[in-house]
Amino acid sequence: MQHFTSVSDVDDLPALLASASEIAHAPHAWPDLGHQKTLCCLFFNPSLRTRLSTQKAAYNLGIHVMVMNVGIDGWQLEFEDGSVMNGNKAEHVREAAAVIGSYCDVLGVRAFAEFQDREKDYAEEIMHAFKRYAGVPIISLESATRHPCQSLADIITIEAYKRKKRPKVVLSWAPHPKVLPQAVANSFAEWAIAADYDLVVTHPQGYELAGQFVPDSLIEYDPEKAFANADFVYAKNWSSFHEYGKILSQDPAWQITPERMALTDNAYFMHCLPVRRNVIVADAVIDSPASLVLAQAANRVVAAQAILKELI
Amino acid sequence: MQHFTSVSDVDDLPALLASASEIAHAPHAWPDLGHQKTLCCLFFNPSLRTRLSTQKAAYNLGIHVMVMNVGIDGWQLEFEDGSVMNGNKAEHVREAAAVIGSYCDVLGVRAFAEFQDREKDYAEEIMHAFKRYAGVPIISLESATRHPCQSLADIITIEAYKRKKRPKVVLSWAPHPKVLPQAVANSFAEWAIAADYDLVVTHPQGYELAGQFVPDSLIEYDPEKAFANADFVYAKNWSSFHEYGKILSQDPAWQITPERMALTDNAYFMHCLPVRRNVIVADAVIDSPASLVLAQAANRVVAAQAILKELI
Amino acid sequence: MQHFTSVSDVDDLPALLASASEIAHAPHAWPDLGHQKTLCCLFFNPSLRTRLSTQKAAYNLGIHVMVMNVGIDGWQLEFEDGSVMNGNKAEHVREAAAVIGSYCDVLGVRAFAEFQDREKDYAEEIMHAFKRYAGVPIISLESATRHPCQSLADIITIEAYKRKKRPKVVLSWAPHPKVLPQAVANSFAEWAIAADYDLVVTHPQGYELAGQFVPDSLIEYDPEKAFANADFVYAKNWSSFHEYGKILSQDPAWQITPERMALTDNAYFMHCLPVRRNVIVADAVIDSPASLVLAQAANRVVAAQAILKELI
Repeated sequence: MQHFTSVSDVDDLPALLASASEIAHAPHAWPDLGHQKTLCCLFFNPSLRTRLSTQKAAYNLGIHVMVMNVGIDGWQLEFEDGSVMNGNKAEHVREAAAVIGSYCDVLGVRAFAEFQDREKDYAEEIMHAFKRYAGVPIISLESATRHPCQSLADIITIEAYKRKKRPKVVLSWAPHPKVLPQAVANSFAEWAIAADYDLVVTHPQGYELAGQFVPDSLIEYDPEKAFANADFVYAKNWSSFHEYGKILSQDPAWQITPERMALTDNAYFMHCLPVRRNVIVADAVIDSPASLVLAQAANRVVAAQAILKELI
Repeated sequence: MQHFTSVSDVDDLPALLASASEIAHAPHAWPDLGHQKTLCCLFFNPSLRTRLSTQKAAYNLGIHVMVMNVGIDGWQLEFEDGSVMNGNKAEHVREAAAVIGSYCDVLGVRAFAEFQDREKDYAEEIMHAFKRYAGVPIISLESATRHPCQSLADIITIEAYKRKKRPKVVLSWAPHPKVLPQAVANSFAEWAIAADYDLVVTHPQGYELAGQFVPDSLIEYDPEKAFANADFVYAKNWSSFHEYGKILSQDPAWQITPERMALTDNAYFMHCLPVRRNVIVADAVIDSPASLVLAQAANRVVAAQAILKELI
Repeated sequence: MQHFTSVSDVDDLPALLASASEIAHAPHAWPDLGHQKTLCCLFFNPSLRTRLSTQKAAYNLGIHVMVMNVGIDGWQLEFEDGSVMNGNKAEHVREAAAVIGSYCDVLGVRAFAEFQDREKDYAEEIMHAFKRYAGVPIISLESATRHPCQSLADIITIEAYKRKKRPKVVLSWAPHPKVLPQAVANSFAEWAIAADYDLVVTHPQGYELAGQFVPDSLIEYDPEKAFANADFVYAKNWSSFHEYGKILSQDPAWQITPERMALTDNAYFMHCLPVRRNVIVADAVIDSPASLVLAQAANRVVAAQAILKELI
């Protein structure tokens, strides 16, 4: 594994999951693996879980950590080659990535979708530029289109709780008052497919994810059919891909309620957090024993540690 | 000791002070006590002394530290149970506390009074929620009504400088241009009482602290009487508790001047810092050999280290 | 060496450069030198390279690091003695510096020119106050008039690439859309003089640096003459010193182009970064093998490590 920015960077998913399982049982078994190694985490956007779980994972391996809030310091990067930089962008990514890369052994980067231009967001120019110029392995701490650290934690969680070899996993859109990226949903879909789960994606008309992540054959518009016999329900809001960045529905019928969970085969409830209670999910579901949201969050450390162990 | 949020969390104050004294003499005697332990410090409000002294204390014990500025990242928590979270609060404290708690072994939290609602501030809902949901020991890095890390450092300082078994300690209100919380004053009072000092609290009419912290019997409105025979003068501004959050006086006569200090028995001068010179205290007092403000600040490391040593 | 705020703090420059060369070849040779030592870095202004390279250098020596963004937390310091602090400044530098100094073994401070008052900026009151009150060695992480960590990295780079004992080094002003400090240029000049290079400074009329940094004898207004036979070209924009903080020219003829570089003796190109491409320097120059900008940036770690090794 050279970088960790999508599931396609993973050479051997079963091996990575086996490593994660080892780490989950003995997180402190490799305290000196990262001796004199340094991880730098670059945040163009805010972060709580990702920031803390990645740091913790690095500490478990004896890796030093440097955290940089790029957004807060108001430092803007130029990505276009050949541009005359007389505007508000103070540094080209060619220099920024190469310099930061020279200060660390692994570089984590978070850069959300900007919702100005779908082609640009989906081209993942920031992640690609860092991969190209930093000279060290890049970990995506959530990019415009993917959140692979979250997805790996999700798969680790499903592996630990699944009751059959090939569980039925439903990715269900749920309502939310703000415009959210498609990254978590895209990413969960591509990892669930790679893990060979029986994935079904359900959402109102107009919320189809990009075809590269969710082929039409996996979409079931009728939530009753989608939830039938499900082993895991993964709830998430996202804004429209086709009418890019638009909120097309806030229909409360899509909230994950006990009634909807009753359609499943005693499914577990999953969400990446932060979650808006009684908007995305009813208290009665998230507070039930079927809720795995805290296990998912705790597995963020395991996932980050498995990734770091591989990359250093 | 399960948490450290007020003096009542301390099982044995003399033992904690003895431990602090040991630490003051040999701060580096336990470099591996915190091996593979992690402290997370969560700041809902700005911090200088608390942030740095707590980090330094953790490093002295070999504890890893993660610092998170919650306020700066604009992340707002919901505390009400059962609420429909379709407003500006992105996460419920039930998830936030549990998740952060799963990433660390001890969790420090700073959350000031908001001055919107006295009942709410004095109910200490943030601190209680973290204690309830985090699953790890909580250290208050200053809450709406208390600042126990500061108070412990203050008591450590008085113990080191006192010239009699039961010194007379005066907590004196002093003027300030801005609305300040009662936390430091409340907290100092409850610790001074627990330490069995001869505590007197003096302030203009209307500045009475909450009765749970300062019983009426300890109030002396006449500063001349209050300062007579004092061994320590602790200056601090606070806004009114009864007319909650109001500034009722900016009377410069309450500034701690050489004249006022002359009423005492060669008392030491104390303040938690930051202090506004020539508003709270005259240069001639804070720059005199009687000033303990730098010793108090240095003892913040000792206090934090004694607390961490106890909790991990 | 007691502090590191200008070249005049360095007792023995050749010895410091020899130490840097040793460090460059074996950065991890002293992993325990900083055992139980702590560096605190205080940023009154944003920082990328300085922040990360100083942290990395400290980690290489086993030094703990605490980073504090003073500006972001909105905490303002009073520097005037005797002032009545009833305005917006919450703490006097006497307390702030002494307290922070008591929490660490070395203190790094970044505080840019404010461009309100030239005398004040050039008096370097912030750096002087920290040197006076902190009680620990101070490292300037860029002050109003100097950037010595950058300059040391620049000299380390020139030493590694020079092809003759006393190279001709040209410091060339270049255009920029914003008002920039003179600090990097001032500092590079005083270090290049201390290193006994054949220094020539070239810029449009009105951009003369302060005489204490660049004596008139080193100025050559004709860039063709300045660049002739140069071994190194160091490009940098600065605003006017004489019409303090003004932009007097944005003449694109001062951009460092292949044509201008052709006037030299195959000179290397240098810049401290961040650099605006095709404004300060043409892509064809910065992307050529003659560009040392990434080597300079990488040497920031070496420089910081040499400084820390000396100070702890």
